Amino acid sequence: MNNFSATYTDQYQLAMAQVYFKQGQKNHSAIFDYYFRKLPFEGGYAVFAGLENFLEVISEFRFNDEDIKFLESQGFEDDFLKYLTNFRFTGKIYSTAEGDIVFPTRPILQVEANIIEAQIIETLLLNLLNFQTLIATKASRIRLVAGDSGLLDFGLRRAQASGGYFATRAAMIGGFNGTSNVVAAKDFDIPVSGTMAHSFIQSYDDELEAFRDFAKGRPKDCVLLVDTYNTLKSGVPNAIKVAKEMEAQGEQLLAIRLDSGDLSYFAKESRKLLDESGLEYVKIAASNQLDEYVIKSLLEQQAPIDIFGVGTNLVTGDPDGALDGVYKLAYSNSKPRIKISESIFKITLPHKKQVFRIKDDHGKCIGADAIGLYHENRVEEMFHPFEPYKSMNLEKYHQEALLHKVMENGEILIDKRSLKEISDYSLTRLSELPIEYKRFNNPHIYKIGISELLREEREKLIKSYKKRM
Amino acid sequence: MNNFSATYTDQYQLAMAQVYFKQGQKNHSAIFDYYFRKLPFEGGYAVFAGLENFLEVISEFRFNDEDIKFLESQGFEDDFLKYLTNFRFTGKIYSTAEGDIVFPTRPILQVEANIIEAQIIETLLLNLLNFQTLIATKASRIRLVAGDSGLLDFGLRRAQASGGYFATRAAMIGGFNGTSNVVAAKDFDIPVSGTMAHSFIQSYDDELEAFRDFAKGRPKDCVLLVDTYNTLKSGVPNAIKVAKEMEAQGEQLLAIRLDSGDLSYFAKESRKLLDESGLEYVKIAASNQLDEYVIKSLLEQQAPIDIFGVGTNLVTGDPDGALDGVYKLAYSNSKPRIKISESIFKITLPHKKQVFRIKDDHGKCIGADAIGLYHENRVEEMFHPFEPYKSMNLEKYHQEALLHKVMENGEILIDKRSLKEISDYSLTRLSELPIEYKRFNNPHIYKIGISELLREEREKLIKSYKKRM
Repeated sequence: MNNFSATYTDQYQLAMAQVYFKQGQKNHSAIFDYYFRKLPFEGGYAVFAGLENFLEVISEFRFNDEDIKFLESQGFEDDFLKYLTNFRFTGKIYSTAEGDIVFPTRPILQVEANIIEAQIIETLLLNLLNFQTLIATKASRIRLVAGDSGLLDFGLRRAQASGGYFATRAAMIGGFNGTSNVVAAKDFDIPVSGTMAHSFIQSYDDELEAFRDFAKGRPKDCVLLVDTYNTLKSGVPNAIKVAKEMEAQGEQLLAIRLDSGDLSYFAKESRKLLDESGLEYVKIAASNQLDEYVIKSLLEQQAPIDIFGVGTNLVTGDPDGALDGVYKLAYSNSKPRIKISESIFKITLPHKKQVFRIKDDHGKCIGADAIGLYHENRVEEMFHPFEPYKSMNLEKYHQEALLHKVMENGEILIDKRSLKEISDYSLTRLSELPIEYKRFNNPHIYKIGISELLREEREKLIKSYKKRM
Repeated sequence: MNNFSATYTDQYQLAMAQVYFKQGQKNHSAIFDYYFRKLPFEGGYAVFAGLENFLEVISEFRFNDEDIKFLESQGFEDDFLKYLTNFRFTGKIYSTAEGDIVFPTRPILQVEANIIEAQIIETLLLNLLNFQTLIATKASRIRLVAGDSGLLDFGLRRAQASGGYFATRAAMIGGFNGTSNVVAAKDFDIPVSGTMAHSFIQSYDDELEAFRDFAKGRPKDCVLLVDTYNTLKSGVPNAIKVAKEMEAQGEQLLAIRLDSGDLSYFAKESRKLLDESGLEYVKIAASNQLDEYVIKSLLEQQAPIDIFGVGTNLVTGDPDGALDGVYKLAYSNSKPRIKISESIFKITLPHKKQVFRIKDDHGKCIGADAIGLYHENRVEEMFHPFEPYKSMNLEKYHQEALLHKVMENGEILIDKRSLKEISDYSLTRLSELPIEYKRFNNPHIYKIGISELLREEREKLIKSYKKRM
């Protein structure tokens, strides 16, 4: 599924690239920042995801013959097309670790490359990182409320076409336990699970007969869907009969699944019926339009649900269809660069930078990241990026540099981690964040500041642009 | 981009398939309906899209060696895996034409195949048809308000990963004119366009110099982005200078692009400046968080914008991340099937069916589709599917059958159409729908009814299930 040619880009990247090429700028170095402006889901943090896929894809990002032929038909010029034929990304990338918690304004990743290469990979970068970060964040919120319950991704059928493939991966980073998506499970080594649809039961004249056949066919992984006709009068009693028959064969029914109606009520009543039959070990799984709010409510009602299957709302990041991540020029042609804007909040930060996470003596986040110039080792005083009179002294705190070189000359420098490792890392990082930043309603706002040097550099650039106007 | 192996499915399809296989049901024929329950965007209609991709993918849907090995590791049994090795879809598909307007409850497409094949393709079917129908519908709403303005898809960077690829195709069916997405343009033969980013201008010390270089590099397709520093004091005056220089070379500046600020105000002021310089031919393009509501408002304010670039809200279908399309069993093992549900609105319709669009003598829709049994040629009296006392006499109307056989023995029966042809067809069909169904606020509700025979068949099944309870 993971095949992207270098035409996975916006046409304007190639239009600009051709101009740079013709103007002899193809070896001019540039630095771009990737960051977002607004946290999704009105939440207090985001989980960065997609890095490993992004690095893998750009390390193989090429224009094939068909691509070149197409671009020729679009009027691109011969010498530039010849350059594209040999195109590969040869730059450096500095990044936050995949799975870390991230916040608005601060660079999550920096690309340092010749300006043509840096520009051609922009669309892919935004496309892969924005989406996986959105979904990992959604999954993390669901994990936060679900405690130790099992969480399964059931979203492929309602995903935005093949977006579902990466959604599944991102869900695992956010803390899900498995998926129904076979191809993602295969490619990303994810536990896969699957039971039965209503159609299976409908295709029999009798629910009990359908359950029996299924138990025979999947004795080790048998989950029975109990709401096709009547959950408490038919589905659960039939499931209990089959569970008893399985016991007689030395097998165990794994779970029943509820997929409609009032899940809290049906889970409690089903639990009673199961327990009364000595089937305390049979789990209850539930699905149907779940999200973090519904799961929180179900658990507050003490619904005895062991496993939640989450679909549409997880894989589409509902109600936010996209993270607003952007890719902005910070340095080129040996000069720092900014974008002035009508809105001060959209003025960019110039230069190559480093980001520091501020921590107390116990390793807990105090709720602040500081952005300095790349050569700064610490930030002693951090300033609000847009409100000049707000500042905060950081002398007494530990500071952890967050951006590390992950690619050089187009080669990946970091070791491949399993999704479990990335997810565990993410949970650890999230545990360092105080609870006020994790609540759903008006979470505490994580502070982002800039160093005095960075502030001065930005001021100088703003003044020089104003003067020229 | 278009490569899907047959593991692009949910695990439960394979779990059920193995049970059917072991129980000797692999040649049992089944019929499934694809339909949705709720129109997206609180609108009055949807545009059906994705059919051609779906048919192409399933005609090639196979399990490769890697897939089989993976499934072996998941405990699937040898004889079933052997069956999967030779798997291909050999069934029939009846479908509404791609681009037609569609409504809730009525089957949009029917699959008739052996139950294993019908089940294994379910996930792919829902994944491709739900998403493209969602985006084509969104695009159609935008086209409705945009009149003859140019509409360009700029969404790839904010799309849900590779979902952007199919989003672009669906946008064209809904009435867009072009895209920035190079790979989709190449594969689906879509006009592609691209100009410049802010980074291009930032990478120069001077905006005018940047514009000049760009005009030299792209003289035939030159669009200048005018809001990097100050739209009216710098961007537009510099664009005018370059346009005049281009005129001296016998060339023409195509357009300027606004990407921030109050688009109505800046478009009007820019138009004045351009016209005062005799540049009436230079167009104005605008982008930045556009959707059908913003474009409607801009045009109501008579903003002189010729081309709209729409990104995030188009390709993610904001605010609806998904169409709720479902795939329900209607017939199997030589018997009609229904799903009884706690909610009457979720009771399914049994049997193989036909859908008729009801039209008056002038070929205009009267606002109703009637669902009959497949052998019925007309529906003389249609009944509300859930409210037994509501009915409507259809004797005096023309009736157009909407479901046609598009696949047989796994082979595609219909001719490939260009996206332009599908889009033109869609616009024609939409023009047959009265305006009351197209308004954004509380649109008139399109009626869906069932024939007397279908109603009787459903009643019989409900009664027999109730009796057995």
